[in-house]
Amino acid sequence: MKPAHLRVEPVDIDVGCDVVFLNPHDAERLGIVAGSRVSVVCGGRGLGALAAVNPSVEAGKAAISRGLLKKLDECSSVEVYPLDLPPSFDAFKRRLEGKKLDAGDYKRFISDIVSGFYDDAQIAAFLVSQLHHKLSEEELGYLIRAMVETGEVVSFGEPVYDEHSIGGVPGNSKVALLVVPTVASKGLLIPKTSSRAITSPAGTADTMEVLARVTFSAEEIHEMALKARGLIVWGGALNLAPADDIFVRIERRIGIDPPAQMVASILAKKLAMSVSRLVIDIPVGRGAKVEDEKEATSLASMFLSQASRLGVTMRVALTFGGEPIGFAVGPALEAQEALETLIKGDGPPGLIEKACSLAGLVFELGGVAPRGRGYSLACELLRSGAAYSKFREIIEVQEGDPDVKPDDIRLASRQFTLESPRDGVVTSIDNVAITLAAKAAGAPDDKSAGIKLHVKTGYRVRKGDPLLTIYASNDARLHEAIRIIEEYNAVMIEGVIVKLLP
Amino acid sequence: MKPAHLRVEPVDIDVGCDVVFLNPHDAERLGIVAGSRVSVVCGGRGLGALAAVNPSVEAGKAAISRGLLKKLDECSSVEVYPLDLPPSFDAFKRRLEGKKLDAGDYKRFISDIVSGFYDDAQIAAFLVSQLHHKLSEEELGYLIRAMVETGEVVSFGEPVYDEHSIGGVPGNSKVALLVVPTVASKGLLIPKTSSRAITSPAGTADTMEVLARVTFSAEEIHEMALKARGLIVWGGALNLAPADDIFVRIERRIGIDPPAQMVASILAKKLAMSVSRLVIDIPVGRGAKVEDEKEATSLASMFLSQASRLGVTMRVALTFGGEPIGFAVGPALEAQEALETLIKGDGPPGLIEKACSLAGLVFELGGVAPRGRGYSLACELLRSGAAYSKFREIIEVQEGDPDVKPDDIRLASRQFTLESPRDGVVTSIDNVAITLAAKAAGAPDDKSAGIKLHVKTGYRVRKGDPLLTIYASNDARLHEAIRIIEEYNAVMIEGVIVKLLP
Repeated sequence: MKPAHLRVEPVDIDVGCDVVFLNPHDAERLGIVAGSRVSVVCGGRGLGALAAVNPSVEAGKAAISRGLLKKLDECSSVEVYPLDLPPSFDAFKRRLEGKKLDAGDYKRFISDIVSGFYDDAQIAAFLVSQLHHKLSEEELGYLIRAMVETGEVVSFGEPVYDEHSIGGVPGNSKVALLVVPTVASKGLLIPKTSSRAITSPAGTADTMEVLARVTFSAEEIHEMALKARGLIVWGGALNLAPADDIFVRIERRIGIDPPAQMVASILAKKLAMSVSRLVIDIPVGRGAKVEDEKEATSLASMFLSQASRLGVTMRVALTFGGEPIGFAVGPALEAQEALETLIKGDGPPGLIEKACSLAGLVFELGGVAPRGRGYSLACELLRSGAAYSKFREIIEVQEGDPDVKPDDIRLASRQFTLESPRDGVVTSIDNVAITLAAKAAGAPDDKSAGIKLHVKTGYRVRKGDPLLTIYASNDARLHEAIRIIEEYNAVMIEGVIVKLLP
Repeated sequence: MKPAHLRVEPVDIDVGCDVVFLNPHDAERLGIVAGSRVSVVCGGRGLGALAAVNPSVEAGKAAISRGLLKKLDECSSVEVYPLDLPPSFDAFKRRLEGKKLDAGDYKRFISDIVSGFYDDAQIAAFLVSQLHHKLSEEELGYLIRAMVETGEVVSFGEPVYDEHSIGGVPGNSKVALLVVPTVASKGLLIPKTSSRAITSPAGTADTMEVLARVTFSAEEIHEMALKARGLIVWGGALNLAPADDIFVRIERRIGIDPPAQMVASILAKKLAMSVSRLVIDIPVGRGAKVEDEKEATSLASMFLSQASRLGVTMRVALTFGGEPIGFAVGPALEAQEALETLIKGDGPPGLIEKACSLAGLVFELGGVAPRGRGYSLACELLRSGAAYSKFREIIEVQEGDPDVKPDDIRLASRQFTLESPRDGVVTSIDNVAITLAAKAAGAPDDKSAGIKLHVKTGYRVRKGDPLLTIYASNDARLHEAIRIIEEYNAVMIEGVIVKLLP
C-alpha cells in the first residue's frame, strides 16, 4: 500500500462523530472499509475517526468533518490509515479480564480514547467492566490523573474553591447560584464550571444561562474569574478532561453510571480547573441518584480517599434529597427563584438552608470561618445583600444584565395548575415524577418550561388548593406533562386521620 | 411535533451502518440530533437507523442508505422519529444487573437488535455482561431460539446433517471441503453454510470461493442442495439468525468471544438451516481458540446441553489443534491442498485423519455406520474417489469448473522461503505466528496469499532445508510477513542432542 497523501476538504455532513469521507476507489486502494476506524495523520499527529465512503468525494481528496478538522489544526493534506486496534488495546483487554492496570496503562488508554482511537462499543465495554471488576483506589487515582492530563488545565496561582453536587434532585440546579456569590463575596476564588442537564430538567449551566452568557474560552474564564472572584459557566466548551465527555455520552446510552466513574468524572473536571478545596454535595432520598445513606457514605469515602490522594482538601455533605429543592423546577423558574432569594436575602427554607450549609462548609475549608461557624456567616452574607451584589457583578462579567428582575424572566405561555383532590396533608412529592413531567413540558431545552410547586411535604391543603403549576410552550407538551403528573400521583395528599378504629 | 412524512431518496454515502440523512431544518423541527438513533417508519414497520444531517439533502426529503431502503421494501415515503431508548431497554438493563430474563424478554430484545434499535455501545454492554453474569442454560436456550426466530429458516423436509468447527487453527478451513463431499457421497443431505474468515487467514467460504461461487439466495440454496446433496456456501448473504452477524461484528471490536455467545452463534445459524444432526469440532492446543482440555470439555457440555434442549442430535469432537492443519494456509493454498487430496484420495496424514474422523462421526449420527465404524467408511469413500466425484458435482452446482486442477489455482507472485538455520528436529510450529504472518501476507482478502509449510512437528531437517514459503502479491506485504515469522520464531528447530553431559 502506498502512503496516501490526500488533500483535505471540509464537509458539512454531520453523523455525530469525527468522520472522514473517501472516494470509493481510494478507500479500496487503502484497504479501508466504510464503518471501520482509521487514523488520520497530519504533521506527525494521528487522530481516530470513522471511515465513510462517498462517491461524490473526488479521488485524492479526504472530506473531513469540521470538528475533526479543527482538532487537526486545519491542516491541508492528510494521510489516512486503517486502524484495526487502538495502540493501548492490550491494556484495555486486561481491564476487561479484571486485571489491574498501572498509571502508564491508564495514561495510554485515556490518551487513545481522547485521540478517537476507541469506538463506542469499546468504551461501553470498559464502563460495563467496572460494574463487575471495580476499580481499586490506586486505579481510580490513575484514571483521574490520566483524564486531567489529557486535557487543558486552567491555573490561577492562588487557591481555587468549589462546591459540586452530584445532582439527581429536581430544583437543585439553582443552589450554586446562591453558593457561588456568597462564597465569592468574602473574596474566595470560586470559578465554578458546571454541566448542562444530563438527565435532570436543568443543569446549573442551563439555569445561569437564563441570566447571562455561560460559554467562554479558557482564557476568558481565567481573566473574568480574577475580576469577579466567582463565576458560573459551562465547562463543556473547554477542553477540560475531555475523556469525561466521551464517557458521559456512552453512559447515557447504556443507562449506567458506575460510582467510581462518577467520582473520576467530577474530580477530573475540578482538577482541570486547579480546584484544591472542594465541597461535595450528595443528595440522599427517594427518587434521588443515591437513595440510602449507606450507599451515600460509601460514595463519600470514595470521594474522600481520592481527594487525599490527589491533594484536594474536601468535605462531603449528605443532604436531604427526598423531594425537590425549593419550589421551582426548570431553568427559567429556577433562575427566577434564585434571583428572588438573593434580592430579598430570604426564600424557601429548604433552599436557604442548603445554600448556607454548603457555602458555610466552603468558608470552613478556607479558614474564613471556624468549624461549625460557616453556616451562620453564609446566612448573614445572604441576608445582608452582600451575596446579591456579588451576583450582580458575576452576571455583569458574564455579559448579562445585572439589573434583571425576577419578573423580567420569560416563562412558557401554556399553564396548567393541579388542584388538591381532598383536604389533607402533603405526605410526599415524587422526585422522579416531577423530573419526568418537567422534561415532558420541554425543560431543559425549552428554558421557559418547567414546574412550579405551591406546596412542600408537610403542608396542609384544602380540596381545590393549587398543588403545582406546569409551564409549557405548546399544548402537546403540556398534556404529556399533565399525564405524567397524574399517572405517577406526583403529589400525595393524605387525610389527617389516616385510619379510624371503631 | 408534527409527524414527518419525508419523501425517500436513496443515497450512496456509506458510513458502515443503516443511516438516514436529513436536512438540518427538518432535523431540528423533528428534535433529531446527528449521531442519535431514530426510528424510520414505513407501512407500520419501524427500523432503527443512525441519524445524520446533510445540508445537501432537500427539505422534506430523507436520504436513506441502500441497505436500509431494501429492508424497508423500497418504500417511497417514511416518517422519522427520535428513538431515545429501544422498547426492550428495561429487559436490557435487568440483564446488565445480572438478573435472569425469560423467553419473552429475549424475543423482544433480539427482535429490537435486529430492527436496529440498539447501538454498538449497548450491544457491547450486553456482551460484556456475559463475562460476569453468565447466561443460565435456560437463558442461552431462549437466546438461541430468539436469534433463529428473528431471521429466515430454510426447511428441507428431510433430516439435515452438518459438521462445524469452532476454528482458530490455521489451515483448518479446508477440512470442510473434504468432509462435505464425503458425507454427501453417501446420500446424506449436508448443505453447509459457513462464514468468511473472522480472525483467521481463511474461512471455509473464502476457500471454497477459489473453486466456485458461494453467494446464493435461500431459494437457490434450497434447490441446489436437494440436487447435489452437499453444498459449501457462504451464510452471510442469507438472513439466517441476523442478530449473530451483529454480535460478531461487535465482538471483533472489543476482542471478546464469550463461550455462551459462541454456542448461541453456531447453533442459531445451524437451526436456521434446519440442521438436526450435527458434529462439532473443537480444536484444542497452544495458540488455538481453546488452549486446554478442561476448557474444551466445558464448552462441549454447553453445546451438548443446548443441543438436547433444541432437539439437535450432536456429537462433539475435541481435536488436536496445536499446530496448523495440513501444509497450506490461505484460501488458494488451502483450496489447492483440498483438491489434491480429493483427487489422489490421499494427502497429509493430519488432514486425512481429521476429515475422516469428522465425516465418520456424521455417518454414525445418521445411522449409516455403526458406532466406531464411521471413520473407516469415510476413509474408504475418500480413497475410492467417491468423495472427489461428489465434490465435482458440488463445484458444478455452485457454478464452478468441475475439471479444475490444483495447478490451475493462481498463487501470489512474490515468494520467500525460510530455511532451517541448523540440523535438528521441528519441535513446534506456532499457530499464532502462522496466522498473523499469513494475514500480513494478504490473506484472506487476497485469496492468492498465504503460507505453505514444508515441514510439520517431528520432521527432521538439515541446515538449509526449506521450512515454509510465504506467498504475497507485493513486496511490502511479503516483508511484513517475513518480519513476523522471524520475530515470533514461528518454526522451532532443536538439535537432536539437546544437552551433553561430560
